[in-house]
Amino acid sequence: MSCQVVFQPSGRRGMIESGSTLLEVARELGIDIESPCSGTKNCGKCKVKIEEGYYEKLGLTSHISHVSPLTESEKIALQPEEVRANYRLACCTQIKGDLLVFVPEESRSTQQIVLETGKDRLLQVNPAVHKYFVKMIPASMDDHRGDFDRLKASLLAQYTHLNQELSIDYTVLLSLPKTVRQGKWSVTATLWKNQVIIALEPGLVEAAYGVAIDVGTTTVAAYLCDLLTGKVLQQDSMMNPQIRYGEDVLSRITYGMNNDNGLAIMHQTVIEGINTLVSRLSEASGINVEQVADMVLVFNSAMHHIALNIDPSYMGRAPFAPAIRASLDIKARDLGIRIAPGGNIHCLPVEAGFVGPDNVAVLIAEEPHKQEKRMLIIDIGTNGEIDFGNKERLLSTSCATGPALEGAQIKFGMRAAPGAIETVLLDPVSLEPRFKVIGEANWYHPSQTIKAKGICGSGIIDIIAEMFKSGIIDTSGKFNMQLSSPRIRRDAHNKPEYVLVWAEETSIGSDITVTQGDVRAIQLAKAALYVGAKILMQKWGTNQVDSVTLAGAFGSYINKESALVIGLFPDCDLAKVVAVGNAAGDGAKLALLDADKRTDAQAVADIIQFVETAVEPDFQTQFIQALNFPHSNDTFPHIQHILDKIPTIKP
Amino acid sequence: MSCQVVFQPSGRRGMIESGSTLLEVARELGIDIESPCSGTKNCGKCKVKIEEGYYEKLGLTSHISHVSPLTESEKIALQPEEVRANYRLACCTQIKGDLLVFVPEESRSTQQIVLETGKDRLLQVNPAVHKYFVKMIPASMDDHRGDFDRLKASLLAQYTHLNQELSIDYTVLLSLPKTVRQGKWSVTATLWKNQVIIALEPGLVEAAYGVAIDVGTTTVAAYLCDLLTGKVLQQDSMMNPQIRYGEDVLSRITYGMNNDNGLAIMHQTVIEGINTLVSRLSEASGINVEQVADMVLVFNSAMHHIALNIDPSYMGRAPFAPAIRASLDIKARDLGIRIAPGGNIHCLPVEAGFVGPDNVAVLIAEEPHKQEKRMLIIDIGTNGEIDFGNKERLLSTSCATGPALEGAQIKFGMRAAPGAIETVLLDPVSLEPRFKVIGEANWYHPSQTIKAKGICGSGIIDIIAEMFKSGIIDTSGKFNMQLSSPRIRRDAHNKPEYVLVWAEETSIGSDITVTQGDVRAIQLAKAALYVGAKILMQKWGTNQVDSVTLAGAFGSYINKESALVIGLFPDCDLAKVVAVGNAAGDGAKLALLDADKRTDAQAVADIIQFVETAVEPDFQTQFIQALNFPHSNDTFPHIQHILDKIPTIKP
Repeated sequence: MSCQVVFQPSGRRGMIESGSTLLEVARELGIDIESPCSGTKNCGKCKVKIEEGYYEKLGLTSHISHVSPLTESEKIALQPEEVRANYRLACCTQIKGDLLVFVPEESRSTQQIVLETGKDRLLQVNPAVHKYFVKMIPASMDDHRGDFDRLKASLLAQYTHLNQELSIDYTVLLSLPKTVRQGKWSVTATLWKNQVIIALEPGLVEAAYGVAIDVGTTTVAAYLCDLLTGKVLQQDSMMNPQIRYGEDVLSRITYGMNNDNGLAIMHQTVIEGINTLVSRLSEASGINVEQVADMVLVFNSAMHHIALNIDPSYMGRAPFAPAIRASLDIKARDLGIRIAPGGNIHCLPVEAGFVGPDNVAVLIAEEPHKQEKRMLIIDIGTNGEIDFGNKERLLSTSCATGPALEGAQIKFGMRAAPGAIETVLLDPVSLEPRFKVIGEANWYHPSQTIKAKGICGSGIIDIIAEMFKSGIIDTSGKFNMQLSSPRIRRDAHNKPEYVLVWAEETSIGSDITVTQGDVRAIQLAKAALYVGAKILMQKWGTNQVDSVTLAGAFGSYINKESALVIGLFPDCDLAKVVAVGNAAGDGAKLALLDADKRTDAQAVADIIQFVETAVEPDFQTQFIQALNFPHSNDTFPHIQHILDKIPTIKP
Repeated sequence: MSCQVVFQPSGRRGMIESGSTLLEVARELGIDIESPCSGTKNCGKCKVKIEEGYYEKLGLTSHISHVSPLTESEKIALQPEEVRANYRLACCTQIKGDLLVFVPEESRSTQQIVLETGKDRLLQVNPAVHKYFVKMIPASMDDHRGDFDRLKASLLAQYTHLNQELSIDYTVLLSLPKTVRQGKWSVTATLWKNQVIIALEPGLVEAAYGVAIDVGTTTVAAYLCDLLTGKVLQQDSMMNPQIRYGEDVLSRITYGMNNDNGLAIMHQTVIEGINTLVSRLSEASGINVEQVADMVLVFNSAMHHIALNIDPSYMGRAPFAPAIRASLDIKARDLGIRIAPGGNIHCLPVEAGFVGPDNVAVLIAEEPHKQEKRMLIIDIGTNGEIDFGNKERLLSTSCATGPALEGAQIKFGMRAAPGAIETVLLDPVSLEPRFKVIGEANWYHPSQTIKAKGICGSGIIDIIAEMFKSGIIDTSGKFNMQLSSPRIRRDAHNKPEYVLVWAEETSIGSDITVTQGDVRAIQLAKAALYVGAKILMQKWGTNQVDSVTLAGAFGSYINKESALVIGLFPDCDLAKVVAVGNAAGDGAKLALLDADKRTDAQAVADIIQFVETAVEPDFQTQFIQALNFPHSNDTFPHIQHILDKIPTIKP
């Protein structure tokens, strides 16, 4: 005999051969029920409530119970009031007919899944929105309640963990009468924080979707996630369409100040960008944008203000105060974002003027505040954000690295795209280079299809490190013009340069060189990061780093050894240096999939201490020292074996 | 010496001669401080906190305290921790210099004022929005908090009764950075329910405004109120602009069902009407619509749904279920209502399908649920709403009276406007009438300027009652054609009629008559009301009415005796019959001015029991009986002396 079994609150159901236990069926249907004893009837953890189909206790002979009788194990494990309330152990209960089974919260096992991104991250699927299927009592002449009051009563009766102050979003109320009748008084309500009905669909609907978005100054990356399984279904990205109003944050703040409606225009532009991404993601997944019930946004502080249409001008000058630090839940419709009309947009909190929700996202992804080890986290973008500390204390700062590390302000710099030189090695004797370009798997060979076009960030770090290791530049960054190589020469302005690629091997028809100016730009950038990290460590009270985490797309591609050789960050065992990719995007996804991460985000934003490194008394001195590349007398024991091999340059 | 004294939280201030006590000054400035002992220093109730200007306890000799030293009475009345926190008794404290004084909630006397409307009503001024002036700590390089976080901290520190979960409406956040700097870090925040910042103004702003609106099927009435004093500043009204889509509720529901976007069009139409009224009221008071921070709406159930853009079609047919019964707070911007962008629109609860928020408004104005006496409340409009009961039990019903009582469906019926006959007396012997028309103070005289044009509701009731008293019609409503008067005649269709005004005395050039059809229409209407009231009384378990309240504009003008003579409501001592005018509008104002009335509204909507009188088994029988006019055998002891004089009509 085949029986229909429906499990609440997930609403999952299946046609089951009678005789199976509820625990077996739950496993088949992918419903998480705690069973630490693995069904050996010892732990009493797999309590479920039989909502329909259990008549034994009523003593109604006309009804044959749809479950097997209460076992001795259950009589021991269950309290008398639980027995009266139709609780059973899933492992002991055989199915004999159609059933409606409720799995109470305490019996649900924490659903941990792996977020597959730059770094696999364990997460608990516990989104801010949940769906609840409910059968309402139909309206009748004897029951004058309103549709909402009826819906609320049914939801609260069936799902006892819901907030008693259950309310309904105005937009959902508009179609409520029609929806409940379309569903013949059976509907699926989408609840936000178990308190506000933000969507309502007729009948049983299980699928729930959310979108996490990282609004970067340059790129907007969006992820469509399944809120039931925690899987990332689709991802997509676009250039931040605000870029036409300014390449960097300050030029956009200035645009907003100098143009009528400048702020509103930039706000609308990025909102339209977000809408485009949501609709591309939805189309690719075959869903409607209105099925997206929740969204998390992360951005830097300035993008946060501009995207939300909040005046950012005061944040751009001392004392750099943001309008709000706290996390925000804004109705999608108030922002003009097209998802479920009742849906909310959660914005992670700002940490301090220059350290934004994106850094908070990195923190909830990497969780330095939960570690024993002292973590140094560097998120490299146009601004570098640095965090240092552990569960005892956590410090952060922001430093103006400039765009050199991303390939800008470098003579032949370019973004990481096909044709960009991404990896470089120099022969220490001949000073001849080997390199790889993006789009080709192997080291450069004259026969390859994609020719070199420029140098991207990781290539820059490599070539500077290699030039230093080969003695082409000294610790001060100055070229050694004594060396005899045709690649070391002076340009038209008599400035030294190193020819990385001869014109005939390029797609641009001119030599690709690394100039004295390029070296200086990298020195400025790396010194800013290094000093920022050092000052945080001093404030914290240590000169030891237990691990270095490189966040951001940039960090994922650089050669860790090259980075340490040029002194991009303080000395650390290279085995403890990890690149984690777009940790800010990961943090956004985590906050979308697990509401506890939002609480954690506010908590870490509240405890982290922002340090204004640039106003530290010895910042200037430290910065000038840090412009130098590490040398034998320096404090880089973990690369001492490399530094020892650098040929001594005669003055 | 003159000193500036500012009282918080009202923000009221004045330049005061030194030497006065704080209690004296508070009285001058109209600040309510409890002082049951009238300043004789005995009760200790007039505690205030000196926020600025009190240096005594600091022992700073360089600061001279701006208040007189602590007295012996105060040492007895105040706790040591209160003394440490700068609490003083207002009656004991003399002013010696500039002061900032905070009056804590427990020291504020309940401000009861009289709402001057159809009936003077005592009310407590306790609106849902309050203004709070606060001086914030300016942003600095040492203090990285956001503007909102800073504002929140200052508000919570200064006003300890505020909700700790204080949040800010998104629209207010947008201009927050600019506003706090315009006010040089001194701002006035408007809080909703002491929890959400819904408006923010630079500097000190005391005035707070709200609008109460009664959205009737025919008329929309709006009242601009001062939320500090509880005064009605302006009132205005307009025809409900939805009237072009249908004269009555059912025709509008039908329009919504039969036309694409019909509902949305009607919704937008009434919202535009509301916006017009708010802007007329604001202009007349010299304020900006954005200064209106709160609004209360009442309407009947169908107008409630249509105004809110909620599908009303299911409410128009059995089982007449509304979409929602609970009261609603909707953001003004979600409805398109132009007041403060962060403001809320409070809609009183629906009671049952046909008994709407307007009846709930009547209930919170009349408060039958707080009385010992059994009150019968009749609100006469196109639908009649009837409430009966007292604090023990309260019942309500709705009955289809039709529009006859408002002058429609009456041959010469018209609305109450100049030229309408509003009062009628007949000479029982000559059967000649005397009447008054609206616009003229005296009984009709041929020389008067305004001639008769038609008969309004109160005139109809009068003439029918007079015709009955004179024997022109009998208890069944039939004309007695035996009587010899030129005014009693047959019309072109051979139907009896009574000529109330000869053509030459009218402005319409034809005789104004009362037809057999008119009598029948009034009989149907009054029977519906009578039976509705009777069934409620039977359900309640009594045949006694202790008082009758006639609500609605109509009720204010009718002659109570005439109404009882035709049997519009069950017998009652005429001294206990009162007309209270637009009690629904009063209820809306009360809910605007006192948030506790909103709680009361939800409570009374929850306890009142709706009775579907039309489905009662003996409704039909009772209704047919009630069509008759009262006669000597009937149960109208309070008008028996009138009924006894009615000439017996020979068959």
